[in-house]
Amino acid sequence: MLNLPFNYLANVKIIPMVIAHEKLYHFAKEILIAAGCPEQEAQQAATILLSADLRGVDSHGVARLSGYIRLIDKKRVNTTPDIKLVHESPSTGVIDGDGGLGLVVGPKAMRTAIDKARTAGTGWVSVRNSNHYGIAGCYAMMALEEDCIGIAMTNASPLVAPTYANERLLGTNPIAVAIPADKQPPFVLDMATTTAANGKLEILQRKEQNTPDGWLQDANGNPTIDPYGVKNGGALLPLGGDKDHGSHKGYGLASVVDIFSAVLSGANYGPWVPPFVAFLDPPSDPVGKGIGHFFGAMRIDAFRPASEFKSHMDNWITRFKSAKPIVEGRTVLIPGDPERIMEKQRRIAGIPLLDPVVKDLQELSARFGVPFNEA
Amino acid sequence: MLNLPFNYLANVKIIPMVIAHEKLYHFAKEILIAAGCPEQEAQQAATILLSADLRGVDSHGVARLSGYIRLIDKKRVNTTPDIKLVHESPSTGVIDGDGGLGLVVGPKAMRTAIDKARTAGTGWVSVRNSNHYGIAGCYAMMALEEDCIGIAMTNASPLVAPTYANERLLGTNPIAVAIPADKQPPFVLDMATTTAANGKLEILQRKEQNTPDGWLQDANGNPTIDPYGVKNGGALLPLGGDKDHGSHKGYGLASVVDIFSAVLSGANYGPWVPPFVAFLDPPSDPVGKGIGHFFGAMRIDAFRPASEFKSHMDNWITRFKSAKPIVEGRTVLIPGDPERIMEKQRRIAGIPLLDPVVKDLQELSARFGVPFNEA
Repeated sequence: MLNLPFNYLANVKIIPMVIAHEKLYHFAKEILIAAGCPEQEAQQAATILLSADLRGVDSHGVARLSGYIRLIDKKRVNTTPDIKLVHESPSTGVIDGDGGLGLVVGPKAMRTAIDKARTAGTGWVSVRNSNHYGIAGCYAMMALEEDCIGIAMTNASPLVAPTYANERLLGTNPIAVAIPADKQPPFVLDMATTTAANGKLEILQRKEQNTPDGWLQDANGNPTIDPYGVKNGGALLPLGGDKDHGSHKGYGLASVVDIFSAVLSGANYGPWVPPFVAFLDPPSDPVGKGIGHFFGAMRIDAFRPASEFKSHMDNWITRFKSAKPIVEGRTVLIPGDPERIMEKQRRIAGIPLLDPVVKDLQELSARFGVPFNEA
Repeated sequence: MLNLPFNYLANVKIIPMVIAHEKLYHFAKEILIAAGCPEQEAQQAATILLSADLRGVDSHGVARLSGYIRLIDKKRVNTTPDIKLVHESPSTGVIDGDGGLGLVVGPKAMRTAIDKARTAGTGWVSVRNSNHYGIAGCYAMMALEEDCIGIAMTNASPLVAPTYANERLLGTNPIAVAIPADKQPPFVLDMATTTAANGKLEILQRKEQNTPDGWLQDANGNPTIDPYGVKNGGALLPLGGDKDHGSHKGYGLASVVDIFSAVLSGANYGPWVPPFVAFLDPPSDPVGKGIGHFFGAMRIDAFRPASEFKSHMDNWITRFKSAKPIVEGRTVLIPGDPERIMEKQRRIAGIPLLDPVVKDLQELSARFGVPFNEA
């Protein structure tokens, strides 16, 4: 049995549908085109969505497609954005996403960072006026094929309470870092700066199970293990959980992500970040434009020959993998291992979709006249 | 009563000595000169040491002076290093510290990053062949006066077990980020990537109290609340504590610090990092030179006008400070607040020194003929 800690579906009994990833990609792309996106941008967006589904980050894949479409319906997402580099230096840039899908703005901004790195050694791009961009890890991984270290962050709708606060002021604000190796697969960290991501709550709700302690506080700011805690007015907790366990560190990291993504670029930050769900209106007193992202690329050979670096990364990875385990057989994982193993499986076996997701996709199919079935 | 979560001395009953920071600085500088450091480098090193004492990070101030001297005695620290930029691109550099004190190599490397940022927008310097550099936050803060965001990281002797490992493979590997504001004080995050720093264990040992759960594992890899757990062959745990609470994230962050600091520069990484304590020999099979650091500087105006950014930072800080508290009167802190308040107090009231530290300093005084007293 493979050790797959991120396999959120492992304990869910009924998988109503499994669909080949190529078919799901094609469906997502056609829906986005039908909703008004130009073909090339629809391809780009569908690629990012599917990479989340392939890597087992189901909360950020096609499960969100209908959410994006609702934002397009509300004119909160611009399907034909004029994405512009509005400020730059040799190693930096600010991009205005013109209200486009984050799935379209993000790849363009990450490519700008990689291009800057080509001449300046590193490239750093902060983005304003964008929307939810899906899975952070995929952007960081774009740097790998150029022998760069890739970095990606984004802010997000406020669901997280800073240490001591009974108020949601930060998003789950992820940090992703992708680092190339030689014979070993790359190191790919992709983490929310909370104790647990929101997607894990949904799984526990379906399983009618409580959360571990340290994940949530209730509407009064008290600890709770109710998986509906956030829905009932509570908040997710920063990585660390409480002050004794370092929640001020998780709060600090989430803040850095917020500031790099939005204060540097001129996007909305903190509690002003517009909500992802279309049924909630954005704050009426914005402090910037849209949501913000931050991307970085560092050329390895701007520090030392890439072959030397990658051979030491192989050594680093091999040494950590062979660490003495606490429990025989449960070996140390390298960041990115679980998602890579999942992708290998799902490329062959297909993408399992939960019932509510299938229902959503069938509704999109009916509305836009794009066929959806597993055959 | 001020809310000072980082005031490790708050509950220790006997403070045998309080000394003015200028006197302590002078003493530290003279000891370093007597041990062979040139005057300017001794000044630099003493400045960094004292800034830790002033900011309340007592574990990284003069309490370590005798430790540095023991490394000089063992010829593991070079008091007259030839610190060189050995590789560069417009926005990057690698510095070889020639075995010097981290307290001397670090400031030079951070200045190189700031200089690079002046022309390229950002500057990133990875350092090899260095030693323990004290408090990370001080290096990040060097960027503030140039209207830059400052970043500092370092690897350190292995005391931390990755998730699932019964082996110490990582240091407490801190991340520091300093961000300028306008009328508000700067945002200064300075955090170990563990649940709790080693210094907190020493306080609990003195108080004969157990640790909270989630800080440590014992020599068999089982959870322990024994404050001597690390000394007895156990390990500190990455931020998160255990898998359910996101320890794989703390492990991932500590790994990024290790790789940026050491694999990029050619220093020792993971379990090969030489120990700080002089009574333990460095590994006999090094994979690089000395220990590694990583520094970054990003000019604000490489992204947007500094005045605009800083005014939004004021707004960010003001909004977070005014968040609704869970407990009336216990308001949300901005990273750097507790240390800044502490520094303000200690600049006036002096630096309190615990008995074992006073004893250490008196021994140095006798050995080098440098007077040490509070008068």
